[in-house]
Amino acid sequence: MNRICSLFKIRYPIIQAGMVWCSGWRLAAAVSEKGGLGIIGSGSMYPDVLREHIRKLKKATSKPFAVNVPLLYHDINKHMAIIEEERVPIVFTSAGNPANWTPWLKERGITVVHVVPNVKLALKCEEKGVDAIVCEGFEAGGHNGKDEITSMCLIPQVADAVSIPVIAAGGIGDGRAITAAFALGADAVQIGSRFAVTVESSAHLNFKNRVKEAVDSDTILTMKNVVPVRLIKNKFFEEITKAESECAAPEEIRRILGRGRAKKGIFQGDLEDGELEIGQISGLIKDVPTAGELFDRMLNEYNKTVKSLQEL
Amino acid sequence: MNRICSLFKIRYPIIQAGMVWCSGWRLAAAVSEKGGLGIIGSGSMYPDVLREHIRKLKKATSKPFAVNVPLLYHDINKHMAIIEEERVPIVFTSAGNPANWTPWLKERGITVVHVVPNVKLALKCEEKGVDAIVCEGFEAGGHNGKDEITSMCLIPQVADAVSIPVIAAGGIGDGRAITAAFALGADAVQIGSRFAVTVESSAHLNFKNRVKEAVDSDTILTMKNVVPVRLIKNKFFEEITKAESECAAPEEIRRILGRGRAKKGIFQGDLEDGELEIGQISGLIKDVPTAGELFDRMLNEYNKTVKSLQEL
Repeated sequence: MNRICSLFKIRYPIIQAGMVWCSGWRLAAAVSEKGGLGIIGSGSMYPDVLREHIRKLKKATSKPFAVNVPLLYHDINKHMAIIEEERVPIVFTSAGNPANWTPWLKERGITVVHVVPNVKLALKCEEKGVDAIVCEGFEAGGHNGKDEITSMCLIPQVADAVSIPVIAAGGIGDGRAITAAFALGADAVQIGSRFAVTVESSAHLNFKNRVKEAVDSDTILTMKNVVPVRLIKNKFFEEITKAESECAAPEEIRRILGRGRAKKGIFQGDLEDGELEIGQISGLIKDVPTAGELFDRMLNEYNKTVKSLQEL
Repeated sequence: MNRICSLFKIRYPIIQAGMVWCSGWRLAAAVSEKGGLGIIGSGSMYPDVLREHIRKLKKATSKPFAVNVPLLYHDINKHMAIIEEERVPIVFTSAGNPANWTPWLKERGITVVHVVPNVKLALKCEEKGVDAIVCEGFEAGGHNGKDEITSMCLIPQVADAVSIPVIAAGGIGDGRAITAAFALGADAVQIGSRFAVTVESSAHLNFKNRVKEAVDSDTILTMKNVVPVRLIKNKFFEEITKAESECAAPEEIRRILGRGRAKKGIFQGDLEDGELEIGQISGLIKDVPTAGELFDRMLNEYNKTVKSLQEL
């Protein structure tokens, strides 16, 4: 029995990443219903909105699901209170110290997963009692670590370092990459960008279409001195790049960034001035299927790939 | 039959990368003798030295081998003349335009492989008559592309785009990663860093030991505005970083870099002032085996990994 399937009580070790402005209850319900794990991304939600999404998700499926909580979220106490009240079974924490919330969640019987970008933080998670970790490679969309370690290098090193289950994230867009992640030592995969471009994703159609048209070199990790984020290069990115090339101070980069850029890009579909957070695997994304169709397709690709590998 | 094994007339689709100051005739002979493809890295050799290495390699093995030629090499005409005279069967070209030398090499019956960092150049190689391509990910050591595309994202996209055979490079340090590369669509793998830390590698023992001690986050891609290169962070790197943080012009970065830095670091073992070119997979390297022992170990790991993958 797969360790992640046992831990989460799910059928397939395939997890849909919690993503700002993309993964509300509709997407999470579709993935959980297929036997994977759907995740609500709470980072773009006010507390009341989060509660509404959890309730709608519970009505739509009786299967396990999770909520992703960036630990730097300004209203995190309210989010965590709602998670307890609504009996969320699994919480993925990210962007912060796993020591801060793990004991509180574990005391309430909640399974805790933390996202890490390197071996050092993976070891710290294990020490702090986290149940499983997501190791997220440099190719992943949105906020990212400063070490720039890719999935190919990160997965085997993290798998060798810890004894808790390891979920691979970053660069996984089809069943071939799921196979690769398992070969490298992962117990499960977390898929973001590919699920962001499905019918059930809350992202604006302009955004989904832009990702569909992206080629391999269209995303880049930028704003490394402020908050490293992977996005599609556009007019907003060019402004940041110009400022950085002139050695702008972090405060100046933050001023250009302003507030609400991700909402503008992903949710409102402003492809010029919005922040188009998405992973490097965008170049492989060519359609907007339903999450269920995508899930079946990836399972088929995975099984076909496993069958195709021959011993030397 | 594997397409790369047919093309190169070798037994295993495992290629040892041509690397400055590491891969002379000893390393190449050891790998070719095992049934892989050994490559002499000519980028750090004067023409006479290259000829000597080719002759010694031909005495040490009757198996196929190759020479890697960076197309920006200042004495490239002399290198190519020697390659013709010494009847080198396979040439890997990199760092330049595949249109410049491919016809000349093909007219002489030489198999041509070109190294690419993105889909666009892969397509150009196919159009120009190159026989196979190496797609090299962001995690690879030494000189690298500006697009920062990782192996996990690059391999499937290149494999989908071209019909010639694809060799995956970057981040491959053991049999798990070989399996991953094949799952992602590669026909073969090219392994650099891991072979740089073997008994037969010409690198200085100080350098090999430093790589052995490296952790996952010890390398970085730097000098992006001059010549992007992945290396282990050290005193020399800190000097570059300081200049870059002060918005130094490319000429100033080139002045700090000076000449002979890679020789100083890799061949002479100066860990402070040398340029320690190596891949991100360094964190996984923990010993200095012979190339033959390493080859057998990776084959065993590969076969074990393939057997472990189960359908879902």
